Amino acid sequence: MLSQSELETLEHCVARLAPRLVADRRDFHRFAETGWTEFRTASLIARRLCELGFEVRVGPEVLEPGARMGLPSPRELEAQWHRASAQGGDPEFLGRMRGGFTGVVGLLHRGPGPVVGLRFDIDALDLVESKAPSHRPAAEGFASVNEGATHACGHDGHAAIGLGVAELLTQLTEVPSGTVKLVFQPAEEGVRGARAMVEAGVVDDVDVMLALHLYSGWPLGHLAPGRGGFFATTKFDVRLQGAPAHAGGHPEGGRNALLAAATAVLNLHAIPRHPAGATRINVGALIAGQGRNVIPPEAQLVVETRGATSALNEYMYASALRVLEAAAAMYQCELTVIPRGSAESAESDTWLAERVWSVAERLGGYEYRQSYASGGSEDFTYMMRRVQERGGSAVNIGLGADLGGWGHHTEVFDFDERALSLGVRLLGALVIELLREPVRHVA
Amino acid sequence: MLSQSELETLEHCVARLAPRLVADRRDFHRFAETGWTEFRTASLIARRLCELGFEVRVGPEVLEPGARMGLPSPRELEAQWHRASAQGGDPEFLGRMRGGFTGVVGLLHRGPGPVVGLRFDIDALDLVESKAPSHRPAAEGFASVNEGATHACGHDGHAAIGLGVAELLTQLTEVPSGTVKLVFQPAEEGVRGARAMVEAGVVDDVDVMLALHLYSGWPLGHLAPGRGGFFATTKFDVRLQGAPAHAGGHPEGGRNALLAAATAVLNLHAIPRHPAGATRINVGALIAGQGRNVIPPEAQLVVETRGATSALNEYMYASALRVLEAAAAMYQCELTVIPRGSAESAESDTWLAERVWSVAERLGGYEYRQSYASGGSEDFTYMMRRVQERGGSAVNIGLGADLGGWGHHTEVFDFDERALSLGVRLLGALVIELLREPVRHVA
Amino acid sequence: MLSQSELETLEHCVARLAPRLVADRRDFHRFAETGWTEFRTASLIARRLCELGFEVRVGPEVLEPGARMGLPSPRELEAQWHRASAQGGDPEFLGRMRGGFTGVVGLLHRGPGPVVGLRFDIDALDLVESKAPSHRPAAEGFASVNEGATHACGHDGHAAIGLGVAELLTQLTEVPSGTVKLVFQPAEEGVRGARAMVEAGVVDDVDVMLALHLYSGWPLGHLAPGRGGFFATTKFDVRLQGAPAHAGGHPEGGRNALLAAATAVLNLHAIPRHPAGATRINVGALIAGQGRNVIPPEAQLVVETRGATSALNEYMYASALRVLEAAAAMYQCELTVIPRGSAESAESDTWLAERVWSVAERLGGYEYRQSYASGGSEDFTYMMRRVQERGGSAVNIGLGADLGGWGHHTEVFDFDERALSLGVRLLGALVIELLREPVRHVA
Amino acid sequence: MLSQSELETLEHCVARLAPRLVADRRDFHRFAETGWTEFRTASLIARRLCELGFEVRVGPEVLEPGARMGLPSPRELEAQWHRASAQGGDPEFLGRMRGGFTGVVGLLHRGPGPVVGLRFDIDALDLVESKAPSHRPAAEGFASVNEGATHACGHDGHAAIGLGVAELLTQLTEVPSGTVKLVFQPAEEGVRGARAMVEAGVVDDVDVMLALHLYSGWPLGHLAPGRGGFFATTKFDVRLQGAPAHAGGHPEGGRNALLAAATAVLNLHAIPRHPAGATRINVGALIAGQGRNVIPPEAQLVVETRGATSALNEYMYASALRVLEAAAAMYQCELTVIPRGSAESAESDTWLAERVWSVAERLGGYEYRQSYASGGSEDFTYMMRRVQERGGSAVNIGLGADLGGWGHHTEVFDFDERALSLGVRLLGALVIELLREPVRHVA
Repeated sequence: MLSQSELETLEHCVARLAPRLVADRRDFHRFAETGWTEFRTASLIARRLCELGFEVRVGPEVLEPGARMGLPSPRELEAQWHRASAQGGDPEFLGRMRGGFTGVVGLLHRGPGPVVGLRFDIDALDLVESKAPSHRPAAEGFASVNEGATHACGHDGHAAIGLGVAELLTQLTEVPSGTVKLVFQPAEEGVRGARAMVEAGVVDDVDVMLALHLYSGWPLGHLAPGRGGFFATTKFDVRLQGAPAHAGGHPEGGRNALLAAATAVLNLHAIPRHPAGATRINVGALIAGQGRNVIPPEAQLVVETRGATSALNEYMYASALRVLEAAAAMYQCELTVIPRGSAESAESDTWLAERVWSVAERLGGYEYRQSYASGGSEDFTYMMRRVQERGGSAVNIGLGADLGGWGHHTEVFDFDERALSLGVRLLGALVIELLREPVRHVA
Repeated sequence: MLSQSELETLEHCVARLAPRLVADRRDFHRFAETGWTEFRTASLIARRLCELGFEVRVGPEVLEPGARMGLPSPRELEAQWHRASAQGGDPEFLGRMRGGFTGVVGLLHRGPGPVVGLRFDIDALDLVESKAPSHRPAAEGFASVNEGATHACGHDGHAAIGLGVAELLTQLTEVPSGTVKLVFQPAEEGVRGARAMVEAGVVDDVDVMLALHLYSGWPLGHLAPGRGGFFATTKFDVRLQGAPAHAGGHPEGGRNALLAAATAVLNLHAIPRHPAGATRINVGALIAGQGRNVIPPEAQLVVETRGATSALNEYMYASALRVLEAAAAMYQCELTVIPRGSAESAESDTWLAERVWSVAERLGGYEYRQSYASGGSEDFTYMMRRVQERGGSAVNIGLGADLGGWGHHTEVFDFDERALSLGVRLLGALVIELLREPVRHVA
Repeated sequence: MLSQSELETLEHCVARLAPRLVADRRDFHRFAETGWTEFRTASLIARRLCELGFEVRVGPEVLEPGARMGLPSPRELEAQWHRASAQGGDPEFLGRMRGGFTGVVGLLHRGPGPVVGLRFDIDALDLVESKAPSHRPAAEGFASVNEGATHACGHDGHAAIGLGVAELLTQLTEVPSGTVKLVFQPAEEGVRGARAMVEAGVVDDVDVMLALHLYSGWPLGHLAPGRGGFFATTKFDVRLQGAPAHAGGHPEGGRNALLAAATAVLNLHAIPRHPAGATRINVGALIAGQGRNVIPPEAQLVVETRGATSALNEYMYASALRVLEAAAAMYQCELTVIPRGSAESAESDTWLAERVWSVAERLGGYEYRQSYASGGSEDFTYMMRRVQERGGSAVNIGLGADLGGWGHHTEVFDFDERALSLGVRLLGALVIELLREPVRHVA
Repeated sequence: MLSQSELETLEHCVARLAPRLVADRRDFHRFAETGWTEFRTASLIARRLCELGFEVRVGPEVLEPGARMGLPSPRELEAQWHRASAQGGDPEFLGRMRGGFTGVVGLLHRGPGPVVGLRFDIDALDLVESKAPSHRPAAEGFASVNEGATHACGHDGHAAIGLGVAELLTQLTEVPSGTVKLVFQPAEEGVRGARAMVEAGVVDDVDVMLALHLYSGWPLGHLAPGRGGFFATTKFDVRLQGAPAHAGGHPEGGRNALLAAATAVLNLHAIPRHPAGATRINVGALIAGQGRNVIPPEAQLVVETRGATSALNEYMYASALRVLEAAAAMYQCELTVIPRGSAESAESDTWLAERVWSVAERLGGYEYRQSYASGGSEDFTYMMRRVQERGGSAVNIGLGADLGGWGHHTEVFDFDERALSLGVRLLGALVIELLREPVRHVA
């Protein structure tokens, strides 16, 4: 456990960092960038880590190119890259991130010993931020200047906390021997980014892996030390390609992709429930057809499956594919299924969650909160699974930051910035603890 | 029957008019305007009719405002009005057409006697015209400059023929006593415009009503003198309004408009066949949903029904409404059905079709073509029905103008411009014939 | 044309035959037998033809065994065979009809010359006949004694007419040279029997083929001399075999044949209309499932398609198969499609229909009735097609026999027995005419 | 706790009873009677209870007449009543059970004190029992003589255990003061009978309520002392009444009940999952239509919903009704929904389950088995809920009785009859314990 003097030093450093945390968060918020286009955000993070003495890795080394799911078009990537350049991105790192390489890994080497990893997601959402005076970011001038991109899930805060932890660790003199690995992940929204970092081997050497997520719906300081119950999920787009015909003159002609789609939609929702646990399916959008008097020659479906376990999600996904194949065959349409994102189910290690809480208790200022299954998904699960499969441990921490407003993923999302310091001190203390004892206590 | 000298005069005048027909057609083609936005086209037609000495009527007098179906938004109307202004529309008439009053009626009074009406439709299609060098309008510089509007159904030719007939009649000295009524109709595509003219009473005093349509698929000069078999049709949009919910966290929440829509689509197509004749239904497009992880809160369907008779179309439409209401109720969605267009079934009067052919034969240069039911629809049927109900007669004439290219409603549609003269001379001769004897011969 | 003396002889003979026609009809009516079990009916017909001097053919020679569609189970066939035996069937012929060979062909050889064929269908319907005193067969004691079998479509009358024509021809002294072929066909209901006779070659040598059908809905003597417009049709049963599972404990287990069937039903009805003419589809019955708490492991559908032409029916049938295959695949069910009956579309030869009417006019006592398409089907079309394909001609004649009661296929069907004589004299006269001149008059 | 001498007495008595338990079970098995027709079974139980000195209640006093769900037709009830009479039912009680009053309550009054209730279900299943020599009941001559009724869920054993407990209690001299209430319930299969007993107030005075169920799939003696997790369920039949029409001649006529049913089936299965817990729906059977060429005029669906809680089941049922109403409206069918059975969710009281296990442990011969949610339903839950709502406690006990054969509800179900004694001694000991201390121990 941290000694009293260590605690005092920690608190002192965090207090000094606090204004910077807010400034960083607001800067990221103002220049919000969505998944795979976080060029400005990531390049500035990389620059700062360099300045703090971290070894910085970017590019294919930390992102397996072919595993980046839901990548925007090259044209879109290029446009946003130029915007980042114009908005003050770091020129050197921008050059190394072109084409959608917006992940950053920072390594602090402190001699031999365990590797403690921390993951921070950094992307914004496809959303137009509120300009209402009642919305603090608008009132105080840090609302997104990038139309259609908004930090409405707190990842701006996560990025700021990550930089805060980096700086804190360089200020603490007594960091134990070992390595700290800070993983700044792009494209968490749509669960698109984690897999590419995992497949690049980013967490393969990690002994203990941590992540922290702010929740605007929980009171400030409420802490779920081992938040789990994330649903495994598969996000995919479907294209049914038929053929057009004039609906009046040749109703029997063509191959009706809309009838195929309608049949699919009903039968996708009719996939049986599973006794092993919760499952989900949603056809979130369907766009089909051309003109009123044309047999619809194509249809596009935006779909996701979920399961309380990866096996349940696989059951849903396999069932969905069978339904789609048959619906396509019924109307002689060609079927294309395009993966857009995925996450596994994963559970935090109990011992590690307990350690998180014991550290939090010692620090004070947190209140215990029961973790529960939300029906949501989170691609940090890819990292958890990889670390656990290789013998390490992982935990996902939830931290309350309520401001009394609306929820995540809304245009007026905001959070209590005091949670930034609460996050940095907890993670900082945990790094030290876990470098010292990265495994379960033996009684 | 026309005397030999009348015929010679006619041919002489038409020959002189020919270059102007082509020029007019190409001008209309170049500045293509879609339904209810034919501001430039209609204002120039009105101006020309004035110059030729016709009494010209425009505005609510010839278009019942509330009966204009599928009207674009006020903003769209305004934008296109300004475009027309910039592209050389007639200032005076533009002022009287603002807000979507793009119909024109021209009257040539030649003393007491019968009223012979001719209808010309003038609107373009929502289509981007080909810029390929193999496409003559592109090669010869008269392709549409209005992106997204293309004359791909020959209405540019119809408008030019209408002006040609107007000019021809003013040049013929021996036009019999009576009235010629030239009806330039907007928004035929989507069968949206004729009803508003009929409801304004435009054809109420007409004894014999004619229309002529060019067909690129028929050899030049092929003539179907009483083309009929048009399907009655109803065009309508459907909106299903449900409510969103998070698909992972609250799959049972919300009200799923996409499931309602999919149920509707299948059951709309399952409306039983009818022993009394051909019926059709098409859901030409469906757009539903927001995001992948959101229960789709709304859906929009673009639908049309058809029937070989108006009664059959009504059977289909009534059945469709019942299906839609039930599908909405099943998912607690609000249902809105928005009419977008309609046409009746109608048949040309046999005696009149025979008269058309006898005149054509006398003129020479036409070949008889059997008319057949196409499964298509045409809102001239509104005018035919109204005239027939009031004791008059009506005919719809098809005229071949093939260029060996692609069909109607494609981006590379074009037609043989020699058909313009063929149309003008036939209609001109018919007007004279029918003013003389606007009824069936008594044997 | 028949001479006056021939006409007089004919009328004389028919008048003498009249009581026997009624007696025969009532005997067949009383011992009604359904398709492929007409053992008593057919054996008595064969016996009578023998007695009249006809060459009689029965068994596989006139019914291709494997082409008999919708054959009852061997057990059922055997039971009805024994019933026929007990009800006075002819022992010799019964022996040759065992196992469902209930067709009879009688040949009257009158020297070289053309072959004129007449077809009579002889089966009853699966229906319990009314016992109400207002129902004449019940009141006069000739209602069916075979529970569940009723002559409710007049085939008892057709069989009686067939025997009447046979007897008539043997009484007329001046029958021209040639051959008369009387074809007594089983299992017309469900359009199951004609194909097997055609495939056995029964009509291969026929120059002119006739059939006559009584209609209770038309006034007595109304005559449609070339009734056509029969829809081609395919009757088939469908079996979807899935697998059961406990609906509470293993909703995801099993393979749900009912969901496959429901998907099929909707999409079968959604098969697009066809511009070439009328089409039909009906799923007349669906039986699926076992217990309330068991995933339904199997489903059976009873289906028919129809088309105004054979090509249209084939379009419907092929589309239906595709829908069924895809629906089965969607739920991993095995699909079995069992043919149960079929008929072609066919049209009477115009010259022959005209000849029928000219003979009828000469005979007097008939009124012309326009033939129309009914949406119904009739397997005499198989014989028509075969004869026509081989260069012969065929006609299907409708004859009114109204009694003012209910329609065909109801439990209280009956007809005016005076139509029996009207049928015999017309067919008798036609046979003589057509033996003399079996082809179109050359003007 | 039972004293050692009490235990010895108990074991002694049970040993003497054992042959009778087997004999009773086999007698009930041989004369298997399904729900509401257990006339022989129930009358003999009532007679035996009388002989043992119990106060016996039957008829409307113990079964609220209108709450008996899924009652067979009067004709069926009468037929089975006569069969029971012929098969040796007790004449006196048969007279009081006519019309489906086959529940029996036996009361053993032992002075003031708590009321301990035990419930035994007594009905057989609609199933034809195996006659295979490998099936012990067949081999040993006690297979069901009532074709179509089979004890395939062990209720014959439950009834025998109930009589065994009754006899045991009369033999034990030291039964504590209080009342023992033995409840013999009809029609548990289809969860149809418990509600009528509860609504008649049968368990309103019970302090502790017990039930025991044999499981052939668990090894002999395995004991789940507080088996819970039963799903709430609603069983109902659905009738859709449309109208027929000839499918060829009038496809547009009629009102197609099969299309309504198919639409309902798909959308019933598409009722969304619920985040609060497991839900189920099954359309176990569908029967629709008449003939192949008739628009199906009616359809019947056999449906059940389930939910891990009663609220979840109500969500499913309400959603199902909405789907059915809309599907009926879509095809203008009349909808009738007929309740056939229902059960609540309920949980055993923990303290009571623990007491069951402590008594079992003291008795010896049982092995603890973890209870789990099965997806199944059980209408004892009605009694549990009523007792718990009135301040009492309830428990449902599972007891293994495996014979290595097939499962419940199969035609070859059987169980190890040694479980009968295991059940009697456990319940007997529990009665004594609970009369002494019918509430949670206070530490």
